[in-house]
Formats: sequence, C-alpha cells, structure tokens
Amino acid sequence: MSEMNDNIAQNTQLYHVDLGARAYDIHIEPGCLTNIGQAMADLFPAPSRCMIISNTTIAPLYLHRVKTSLEQAGWQVSECILADGERYKTIQSFGLIMDALMQAKLSRNEPVIALGGGVVGDMTGFAASCYRRGIPFIQVPTTVLAQVDSSVGGKTAINHPHGKNMIGAFYQPRLVWIDPQVLNTLDIREIRAGIAEAIKYGLIRDAELFSWMQQNITAALALNASVLSRLIHTSCRHKAEVVVADETEQGMRALLNLGHTFGHAIESMTHYESYLHGEAVAIGTLMAARLSEQLKYAPAGTEKIIHDCYLAAGLPTSIPDFSADAWLDAMGHDKKNIGSRIRYILLHNIGDAFLAEDVSPDAIRALIGSYI
Amino acid sequence: MSEMNDNIAQNTQLYHVDLGARAYDIHIEPGCLTNIGQAMADLFPAPSRCMIISNTTIAPLYLHRVKTSLEQAGWQVSECILADGERYKTIQSFGLIMDALMQAKLSRNEPVIALGGGVVGDMTGFAASCYRRGIPFIQVPTTVLAQVDSSVGGKTAINHPHGKNMIGAFYQPRLVWIDPQVLNTLDIREIRAGIAEAIKYGLIRDAELFSWMQQNITAALALNASVLSRLIHTSCRHKAEVVVADETEQGMRALLNLGHTFGHAIESMTHYESYLHGEAVAIGTLMAARLSEQLKYAPAGTEKIIHDCYLAAGLPTSIPDFSADAWLDAMGHDKKNIGSRIRYILLHNIGDAFLAEDVSPDAIRALIGSYI
Repeated sequence: MSEMNDNIAQNTQLYHVDLGARAYDIHIEPGCLTNIGQAMADLFPAPSRCMIISNTTIAPLYLHRVKTSLEQAGWQVSECILADGERYKTIQSFGLIMDALMQAKLSRNEPVIALGGGVVGDMTGFAASCYRRGIPFIQVPTTVLAQVDSSVGGKTAINHPHGKNMIGAFYQPRLVWIDPQVLNTLDIREIRAGIAEAIKYGLIRDAELFSWMQQNITAALALNASVLSRLIHTSCRHKAEVVVADETEQGMRALLNLGHTFGHAIESMTHYESYLHGEAVAIGTLMAARLSEQLKYAPAGTEKIIHDCYLAAGLPTSIPDFSADAWLDAMGHDKKNIGSRIRYILLHNIGDAFLAEDVSPDAIRALIGSYI
Repeated sequence: MSEMNDNIAQNTQLYHVDLGARAYDIHIEPGCLTNIGQAMADLFPAPSRCMIISNTTIAPLYLHRVKTSLEQAGWQVSECILADGERYKTIQSFGLIMDALMQAKLSRNEPVIALGGGVVGDMTGFAASCYRRGIPFIQVPTTVLAQVDSSVGGKTAINHPHGKNMIGAFYQPRLVWIDPQVLNTLDIREIRAGIAEAIKYGLIRDAELFSWMQQNITAALALNASVLSRLIHTSCRHKAEVVVADETEQGMRALLNLGHTFGHAIESMTHYESYLHGEAVAIGTLMAARLSEQLKYAPAGTEKIIHDCYLAAGLPTSIPDFSADAWLDAMGHDKKNIGSRIRYILLHNIGDAFLAEDVSPDAIRALIGSYI
C-alpha cells in the first residue's frame, strides 16, 4: 500500500454531480457518519423536521449515531425502519413509508435520509419523489453496492412482482454522504456483491480499472482501506460522469445496465429471495459476455476472463435453471409478437460495452441452450 | 347567444402549453373523441401498443368510440377499467394499473390514455410518471372539472387515507384532447361541481369572468353549447398561463388552490364519500372568503356574493360539522407545535387572490367557531 493510497484513505474526497438545478455533491470520508448533522445544516439553513428511513439490520448499528448528529444540529428526527432485503422492495413497503411520512406530517421542504443499502436508497428516493409530489432526500449508503453505484444518479424504484424496478422515478438526491468505515460491519456476501458492481465499471468503460481489480480482489475482500477507498472513488467518478452525460437514460447511461437484463430476470424468477442484486448482475454479466462471443462481437475467451475474476471475488457464476420461455418472459419479450426485440448491453471487449438493439429471441434461446 | 359564441362552440380551439421540452397542446373541439387515433398518429409516428385507462361509468359510454378510432389508426389497444369515484383514488387502484401495464408489457415509449374525469386523469398520470420511470400519457377528460382544470398542468396524484393527493408527481401529459360533447351524458351534480372550479378562476384572477359566470349559470347548467365552450376555453387559458409561469408550484400556481386547503380537509374527513371534489372546494372557498373578511383582507360582503353565485349553481354551501381540532389535524397543523403555520389562499377581493403565510391555528379556531 503506497503512501499516496494511504492519504486517499484518510482524506475527504468530493465529487460534484453537475446537473444544473439538480446538482449535488458526493462526499466520501472515513468516519463522516457522525458529521451528517453539520452537512445537513449547510443544505438546510433552518433545521426543522426530518425522517431517517432504514432497515432492521442497519438501524441497530448506525441509527443512533446518525440521529444524535442530527439532533445536535437542531433537527427533530423521526424514523421509519423497514424489513431488510430485496424481497421487501415492494409497493407494501412504499405504503409503510407513506404512512410514516403522513404521521410525521413532514412538509414539502423537510428531508428524508436513506440510511442503508440499495434497497433502502431506492425505496426512500422513490417515496421522496412522490410524497407531496417531491421532498428533498439524502443518500447515506452503507453497503459497497450502494456506495459505488446505486446511491448516485437518481434512479429510484420499487419492484413489481413481475419485474424489478418497474415502478419508480428519476429523482436526484440533494447529497450523497459516504462513510467507507461502515463497511467494516458488512457481511462478506454483501461485500462480494458490491465488488461485482465496481468490476462492472471496468468492463463497461475502463479496462485499466478491471486489471487493477483483478490484482486487488483479495485486498478488497479483506476490506483494505486504501483499496476500498480507490474502488469507491473511481466508481463514483464513473457514475457521476455517465449520469451528467445522460441523466434519464436516453443513451449512454443504458451501458451501466450491463448484466442487468439477465440479472433482473434472475431476481424476478427467484422472487428476490435467492440472490443479492450484485450476485444476479454478476451471473447476468457472464451471460452477456457469452452472448457477445456467440454473436461474434467479442473475442473468444472474454467470458473466461470475467469468470475467473468473479471466482476470485467469491461470486456465484452458475446460471439458475429455467426454460428459455421463462427467461424470455421475465425479460419482457412478448411471446405473441415474433418480431419483439429487447435491448441488451453487450461487449466488444473488456472495457468496451455497447447497446445492441437487434438481439432476437432466437439468439437468447441459443444462449440458454448453450448452458445445458 | 351571439353568432360569435356559436362559432366558438363549433370550431376547434388550440392552446399551447409552452413548457419547453415538456410542451403540449390543449385541443378543444366538439366531437373530437372520434379523431383521437389521428391525433395520436401525429405524436407517435409508428403506432404500436397503448392502454386506455377509464372507469366503470365512462367506459360503457365512450371506450368503444375511442378504441375504434385508435385501432383504425393502427394501434394495438389494451384497457384497464377501474371503479368510479374519488374513494377509489388509492394506492390499491394504482397497484391495479401497474398490474395491467406489466401484463400488457408496455414499453417505455408506449402511451397510456386517461379517459375519464379528474380521478382517472390524476391516477393515470401518476401511474404513467412511474411505470418504467415514465411513459407518455394523453388526457381525454370527460367531466367539466377535468376539462376546465385537472387535465391541464401535470399535477398527478393518488390520495392517502389521511390526506388528499399526498402521493403524486409533477408529470405533464403529451396532449390534452377535449370533446365538450361528452358532457351531455354527465350527471347534473358533476356539472355543478365542475362549474365551481371554473368560478374559481374568476375569483382568483378574473373578476370579469366571475360576473359573466353569475349571468350565465343557468345556461351553463342547461349545457348551452356556447356558454360551456367559453367556460372551457377561458378556464384552459387561465390554467395554461399559470402553469407556464410556475410549473411546480413554487409561487403563483399555489393561488389555484383557493378553497383547497379546507376542501381537501372536507374530503379527507368524510372519507371521500360524501362530496365531489368541486363541491368540497366550493365550501372551502366560502370558508376562505369568510376568513379573508375576518382577517380584514377582504371587504365585508365578499363571502355573500360568492355564496349567492354557488346557490344559483346548486352547489352545497354548508360546512360539515367537525371540531376545530379535527379541522386543524386534517389540514396538517401539528398540534404539538404551537407555532405551526399553514399556507392559505385568501382574497383581497373578487378576482384578486393571494397567498397568506401567517394564518395561525387560533384564526382557524375562530373561523370554525363562527359557524356554530
């Protein structure tokens, strides 16, 4: 670990997501969880009421710390604690948040704070986007996945039983407040799943990041502070760049969905119970890589390189056993409409993803068939 | 009825709501329901799938006509028919729309069409704003209220059991398609309630419109084509002007909420079962007028003038019997917080509304007390 990396681990890093009227900062600083009250004072000069939304895993660990910081800064804090897990990212949980907001009588200028991983962040953001047609919200991500990906960029949503993230909004947070130290209490499985999303940026647009990840997987899994720090910084920089270029996914932002069409299908077909989001995306990325090879977009061996990296990260690499029809249905192909085409993100190479508009259901059948 | 008014009744009228990237037209034309397919072809050069969302009252009358027009223009049409009434403007109905959209596998560029009154329009717009984080939607309003007010401006929402329109989005339609002839099948109570919203524009910003309404109430209730036409045109013009000036209600758009703070409380306290929205707003407007007099903003007699106009329109004018605490609670005053202030729209005079930030709970208690 070089001295430079040590400094990165110690110091504050700021990224500005320049979206005009919706611009905001990503603040990365070890230990910053205890300073959230002060940060909120900068955003809202007259502290009033706010609500922390978290889950039953994170709240016992960090709610008190965040709440104390806010109260010391003059905030009147209420809370809404939800069940933990992707299978609770439902319209029912959304209703519970609305009930809590109504009961706390939060007004249009009073913020909610998402304290948790991707599920908490996505649901809180969507709730914030529609309560009184929009109130401010702050992301305080507590998992690798949320710190490197989902807390930045304003994609908020809940799941529908038949499709992941089908109900949501583009709604930007007012601040993303990242404390890498909270990762120390994270389950190793959550760490592996988050690392998968960081590897994703390498595969899509940064071959150098991918080879750095290959070399540093073990250190990342061991929560080496400087490796984690660089992983978070680099990911946030990529995410911020892409979001500024294409906030509502009219074009290049779609590339960030590498592995997600297959990954969402895996999550939906297994009822959000068997795989973490990052795990499903890892399997989905391997499928996208194999499809890229089969369609002659990527050189032979591309899938193998990614597969080895995921193995080193301890991620699952076997695809679950469903019929081709089940896959097509879960991915939104209309079986009655022979000509239906779904957009897939494929690879020309490591570090070079692209949007393929012309993948036919037959190509998907052939892909699924190749696993049998 | 002058010849000029006859012409207005016969002819097409267009208003353009100039919101930049979110700009759209309001098209008013008797009989235009049968041309919706053609209008959609202008917006979407390659017709594909769409969904009509309507209710059990409107669908038997007009669904076939709209569907036929769309199918003739090459659209593949699915439908989602909801129960009729404000009490169904719920998260449950919202869930039913999502189920229908998922089942029809509508993609991100395929539109939904709201065929109905304010409830259908508000729910459809909100569903369109969040299904796949936003798909296009078209307003085809079939009540006076929806034609003069709610179909224009992009305020979409569902109700929470404890508060009207508490869950929603600012999300503009791609087109508002108004056929005044459909009002002929409308219940007289619905007509009266819609006229109340038109009178509202007079009270807020157009004293001349108010006196014209006073003189033409009987003709409007009898569905005189030229009177209705002028009423719709003038209301749409006012609504479009205000929305362009202040799309997300940072300032002047709030004036359109005259009578709504009290009106929403009435609807919520009576569980959306006793009053139509326009009826509740009429009563709420009388309360706002009395409060304006009590606080010395408006000259004595202001309430009486409005009261007489509503009586002529056959609107309810008595306030329902609830305790002052129940009123304050329903209007969002925090009883634990002595200093809480709610914003009310009050009148300096007929045609001159303003936003009062400093109305105390005690002023509301005195107002409620004055009715006993």
